[in-house]
Amino acid sequence: MRLAIDPPLDPEAYPFRHDIRTRFGETDAMGIVHHASYVLYMEEARVAYLRAVGHPYPSVRAEGIDFAVLEVFVRYRAPLRFDDELTVHVALAHASRATFQIGYLMTVDGEPRATGVSVHGALDHDGRAARLPAWLGPLAAGWPTA
Amino acid sequence: MRLAIDPPLDPEAYPFRHDIRTRFGETDAMGIVHHASYVLYMEEARVAYLRAVGHPYPSVRAEGIDFAVLEVFVRYRAPLRFDDELTVHVALAHASRATFQIGYLMTVDGEPRATGVSVHGALDHDGRAARLPAWLGPLAAGWPTA
Amino acid sequence: MRLAIDPPLDPEAYPFRHDIRTRFGETDAMGIVHHASYVLYMEEARVAYLRAVGHPYPSVRAEGIDFAVLEVFVRYRAPLRFDDELTVHVALAHASRATFQIGYLMTVDGEPRATGVSVHGALDHDGRAARLPAWLGPLAAGWPTA
Amino acid sequence: MRLAIDPPLDPEAYPFRHDIRTRFGETDAMGIVHHASYVLYMEEARVAYLRAVGHPYPSVRAEGIDFAVLEVFVRYRAPLRFDDELTVHVALAHASRATFQIGYLMTVDGEPRATGVSVHGALDHDGRAARLPAWLGPLAAGWPTA
Repeated sequence: MRLAIDPPLDPEAYPFRHDIRTRFGETDAMGIVHHASYVLYMEEARVAYLRAVGHPYPSVRAEGIDFAVLEVFVRYRAPLRFDDELTVHVALAHASRATFQIGYLMTVDGEPRATGVSVHGALDHDGRAARLPAWLGPLAAGWPTA
Repeated sequence: MRLAIDPPLDPEAYPFRHDIRTRFGETDAMGIVHHASYVLYMEEARVAYLRAVGHPYPSVRAEGIDFAVLEVFVRYRAPLRFDDELTVHVALAHASRATFQIGYLMTVDGEPRATGVSVHGALDHDGRAARLPAWLGPLAAGWPTA
Repeated sequence: MRLAIDPPLDPEAYPFRHDIRTRFGETDAMGIVHHASYVLYMEEARVAYLRAVGHPYPSVRAEGIDFAVLEVFVRYRAPLRFDDELTVHVALAHASRATFQIGYLMTVDGEPRATGVSVHGALDHDGRAARLPAWLGPLAAGWPTA
Repeated sequence: MRLAIDPPLDPEAYPFRHDIRTRFGETDAMGIVHHASYVLYMEEARVAYLRAVGHPYPSVRAEGIDFAVLEVFVRYRAPLRFDDELTVHVALAHASRATFQIGYLMTVDGEPRATGVSVHGALDHDGRAARLPAWLGPLAAGWPTA
């Protein structure tokens, strides 16, 4: 597996944070937020992060690049419930020439609820692997890779 | 509103049926299937209906046409639960030159759980209103419109 | 059908507004926001409205009441796209002894994209029809019913 | 991380298979199935697997046990598209006293599209960790753990 980082539980390790209130439609019959919903929270936070660093995703696409999702990992530590005010902490953890990895920590009232990782590659509009944009590498925190 | 049909509770009124087993991820914290999931069931059944009448949706698009959703209506009569074996009964209820209406009856063990209506128009690939395909009108049941 | 209101296109007709940024995961292969996603936007805005009028949904449930969804209607007027900053205008349009209807207008940059209606009833925790809470009726705008 | 198996690409390694046709509502604006949808496919296949081995999930719950999702991993190898006839191959790969891991291979026409892993623990109805049911361990294939 390419996925190679272990997101820390300390919010200080993440340069960006994004708030999301959980929806009722994202819960399930166990009374908690369904595990697939976390993948959508990570995506929403990732899009907000790109906007915050000056590269909103629509402008990335206008440069001829798509960021494909190659791998996703979520570790569920404590349940989320309806109407929770969730904070998703985001770090661009690692970048190589062709892929990058984002680390996520999800907290409610400062308490960890989940961690996650997504691994991405750049594609051109014909779906072929492309170089990452030059602005991306310098943002990487250089977290240790297992 | 264009939506103008009232789907009957008699399964015999519908020429097509499609079976779906509800997913756990489609439930919510009330312990029942979330109301937005029914809209996805209607879409899955609509796609299966088009396939059954010899016009699978990919071939409709290859003819240069998209079927846009103009309106959706669902009436919830009794809850659906996780792992229910749902039958969606489908009828092409009404067609005019530019739009058509599909009626849905959802049952479990023959008991009605919901009815629904979707209203559609044809668009060309530039997003402009287009004529409906010629094969569509003759399929319409001609249900009364309120 | 119980659904009986026709939501106006004038934002001034709605006492409450709630902002939502559309997610990439809510789009579909036509390149626009999928029609089922609007039902989730209406729910998120409805929950925010109840919070704003001093009756957050968790406290409603603590009073022994659930608000079941009896009917949903959406009319799609113009597409929503990824990363749109959507405003959902909300009005408690009508209340009877046992049900109430909420009207929605969705806009981007002031332009209408969709209107919607949801019809709700009160249930006790055994799933039996219950009276609406006393605070609800006075909030109703008394929109005309067709 | 507890997640410790690497699902093979050979369908023969999986004792169970489950077919799913992808929905239009599960695609996104890149024209392919959205990455979060795979998590729902894995869940649907897992539920079908439990049914096939004689322990449908409702009966598991009636025995006083819930299977919580502790971790999820997906590796995307080639895109899925609308209306694809997807086969999800399932193996109960590994079981310890308190957790078990399921491996997934998703194929279309025999070609791999994704692999995945989910890690689960047993909870009693008060949310406390519980022993796995006795029937579960013997089903485990004993795949190597990294």
